[in-house]
Amino acid sequence: MTAYAALSRHFGRIAAMSNAIGILQWDSDAMMPAGAAGTRAESMALLRVLQHEMAVDPRVGEWLGEAEQDNGLGEWERANLREIRRSWTVETALPADLVEASSKAISACEMAWRQARANADFKALIPFLTKVLKLQREAGAAKGEKLGLSVYDALLNDYEPGGRALRIDALFDELAAFLPGFTEEALAAQARRPQPAPLEGPFPIEAQRQLALKIMAALGYDFERGRLDVSAHPFCGGADNDVRITTRYDDADFSKALMGVIHETGHALYEQGRPAAYMDQPVGHARAMSVHESQSLIMEMQACRSREFLAFAAPVMRAAFAADGPGWQADALWRRYTRVERGFIRVDADEVTYPAHVILRYRLEKALITEAMPLGELPAAWNAGMQELLGITPPNDRLGCLQDIHWPSGGWGYFPTYTLGAMTAAQLFDAATRAEPDILPGIARGDFAPLVGWLRSNIHSQGSRFTTDDLLTRATGRPLDAGVFKAHLARRYLGAE
Amino acid sequence: MTAYAALSRHFGRIAAMSNAIGILQWDSDAMMPAGAAGTRAESMALLRVLQHEMAVDPRVGEWLGEAEQDNGLGEWERANLREIRRSWTVETALPADLVEASSKAISACEMAWRQARANADFKALIPFLTKVLKLQREAGAAKGEKLGLSVYDALLNDYEPGGRALRIDALFDELAAFLPGFTEEALAAQARRPQPAPLEGPFPIEAQRQLALKIMAALGYDFERGRLDVSAHPFCGGADNDVRITTRYDDADFSKALMGVIHETGHALYEQGRPAAYMDQPVGHARAMSVHESQSLIMEMQACRSREFLAFAAPVMRAAFAADGPGWQADALWRRYTRVERGFIRVDADEVTYPAHVILRYRLEKALITEAMPLGELPAAWNAGMQELLGITPPNDRLGCLQDIHWPSGGWGYFPTYTLGAMTAAQLFDAATRAEPDILPGIARGDFAPLVGWLRSNIHSQGSRFTTDDLLTRATGRPLDAGVFKAHLARRYLGAE
Repeated sequence: MTAYAALSRHFGRIAAMSNAIGILQWDSDAMMPAGAAGTRAESMALLRVLQHEMAVDPRVGEWLGEAEQDNGLGEWERANLREIRRSWTVETALPADLVEASSKAISACEMAWRQARANADFKALIPFLTKVLKLQREAGAAKGEKLGLSVYDALLNDYEPGGRALRIDALFDELAAFLPGFTEEALAAQARRPQPAPLEGPFPIEAQRQLALKIMAALGYDFERGRLDVSAHPFCGGADNDVRITTRYDDADFSKALMGVIHETGHALYEQGRPAAYMDQPVGHARAMSVHESQSLIMEMQACRSREFLAFAAPVMRAAFAADGPGWQADALWRRYTRVERGFIRVDADEVTYPAHVILRYRLEKALITEAMPLGELPAAWNAGMQELLGITPPNDRLGCLQDIHWPSGGWGYFPTYTLGAMTAAQLFDAATRAEPDILPGIARGDFAPLVGWLRSNIHSQGSRFTTDDLLTRATGRPLDAGVFKAHLARRYLGAE
Repeated sequence: MTAYAALSRHFGRIAAMSNAIGILQWDSDAMMPAGAAGTRAESMALLRVLQHEMAVDPRVGEWLGEAEQDNGLGEWERANLREIRRSWTVETALPADLVEASSKAISACEMAWRQARANADFKALIPFLTKVLKLQREAGAAKGEKLGLSVYDALLNDYEPGGRALRIDALFDELAAFLPGFTEEALAAQARRPQPAPLEGPFPIEAQRQLALKIMAALGYDFERGRLDVSAHPFCGGADNDVRITTRYDDADFSKALMGVIHETGHALYEQGRPAAYMDQPVGHARAMSVHESQSLIMEMQACRSREFLAFAAPVMRAAFAADGPGWQADALWRRYTRVERGFIRVDADEVTYPAHVILRYRLEKALITEAMPLGELPAAWNAGMQELLGITPPNDRLGCLQDIHWPSGGWGYFPTYTLGAMTAAQLFDAATRAEPDILPGIARGDFAPLVGWLRSNIHSQGSRFTTDDLLTRATGRPLDAGVFKAHLARRYLGAE
């Protein structure tokens, strides 16, 4: 067996383990009875340890060294080796005691955060978050040394391979300069339009579920390789060829579940469309979190808040709930789903105000990781940033710097991928609709095949064959720039009414 | 760390792996989309290999040798060592190539069986079943050598530790002598009673599910540590502290799902009641398949086909389906649920005719394993046995020797546990109702606490602390005898009407 074949087989086994963990994680969130939590934690911990052992198996290093000298490999195989080398470098960079200390600090900090958030008491979180932050810095330093990256870039690299703070700074500064004024204009334009008439509930859960299934099918979701279920926090998870999404229904408001399902379906289409021949190999994985988020936002923001989609969806929604009236017309629904509002909470934000939430977090986490700012100053800096970027000041830290679990749970370097994803979505959708003139007419008749076909060939089926920059350049003609996103916002929110 | 502590920790890890496999198996049967089968098979195969590697880890043998010399251990610990020794002996008895060959032969035979059964073509199955049978003999011989048991007893031992064909022969011969005449009498008595009026459907699935949940709750099922779902073949599975049961609904007949749920709830109560302190240790496992089956049959046959239960259940059923009429009265339901009928299919049999199906299979599988009979003679021997024990002859092998998957899937030595379980159930229920006079009145008011309380202390909480004989003797005053079961049948089917 060649070294490459041995590597490929080994990573097939790692995928088999990841797939087991993925289904157990889905079960924990969507199915598991409460009394099983302790037992499940034991199983998950064991499988994760075994997975880590496989990932750092010394034979991987030997096989890699040998396979990288193999001149007989094709392009996909070489790209696979590049991805394996990257994950090997990252996985072997961390000493075992740092991994364990970090895992314990995170568990403690997540618990403390739940309490601190409930009490709007940031001070109570400081000792726990200090520990997590310190260990994140150490992890970033250890990885950065192997990768030749700064501490922050090394953390970012876990979610966004090839991502660099320097590039993000430029993109986000451009948005930060644009958005406050633009938001004013968008709100003014919105104020000139009539408010959409209300949608009168309740909306029975089963009817919401049937509507969600219908829209998922229209989007091209493959139910032979996935499911729709319920969980407290909606997500897309599962395993290769078993891409499951969840939602949460509120019988007073069907829109949240519906738009959430569309978002997760975007993620799921990416996962279901990854290259079959490399499904279990690193090169077959999704390219980066920004690209993943772009796939959910293309569906949720670009496609399904368009006038074309709502022309198709309005009668489907009316039929789902046996409803009618002025609020249920396509134009009113479009105004509802493109409503702009300044708010304190990131997860409730619309696409105009969302980037401000992300830019704020990105700037703050960079300052904290590089020790440019002490942790104690976070609440004041948060509130000042909210005032600068959004023009509002949170009345307390529950609605401010305590709202997200990312930092307590060790997700430093993750936040920027949300807005990189939004920009990528705009750029891809713009290129797609230029290349395939039938995409928007298709959406207007509930036929997503032209859009998904373009995404399948340009993004999904490419896995991690190219770097993110190359993937985007091949698909759109240029690397990520902020201009297309700005143009999209201007067209949608300031365009002809 | 003492050798015992090291063993205990090691078996805790094995339990964590079994629990992961148990949930993934449940998911495969109850949740998984069809397109994920191949991916799931890879994950299951990997986890099973890892579990087997842990079970045959050479350190287990070393720790065992050392711990067995440890005089400071308590009774439970010594019983745990006994169980670990047994599983170690069995697990290490088989050469790896035999395990692999057997697994492959079984996969091929199961596929061939589906086809052969559909075509009622036993000849087509012979080459496949010959291979499985040969490998089962080899496995039985290898285990038997280590255990000092005959080939058949060694196979039986996997399901029924301590079980011996010699004892089963005597018990089954006694039943075989009793049942044909008794069945005649029961049918004659039944013919003298009026047929119960029909129950008019359809019975909506959701109403059936709500009824099932209500009855499960009455029986004492703990929903904090389990769930009820749907699968093609009902089962009780999952993990420690996560005991999930499934059923299958037919909207023309609610009784099958309901009685199936009661049966699986009996299994689940055993699993949920195993000793918490030894939940993840071999000594904390269920004692034997016969004891497991006794727990399902105590609920399904002893308790829930009693007049007491149907007095409680009749109004609950009427309310569930907003139904009424003569068929819905307690007496009519009792006649429905104690109906005796000779049939070809084991899984459809009532408690009077069921043992004949089992005794036939037991005798035949023993003859096949010991090579007293060639495989080609199976269909003729089957039909002759059916005629002798039940007085009917299957018109083809689909309704005869091809009906069960047990032999194709390598479950040789399993069949007798069904009827051992039925006899054990009768003996335990008899002892329980004598010891706790409130059990039957409790059932009549839908309160199973007195019955479950007795089972919890006498059976569930004992895990594998005692041998099956000792467990039964402690609970009922004597080892298994056929007399109590015969008396139960006589009382129910020939008693005062």
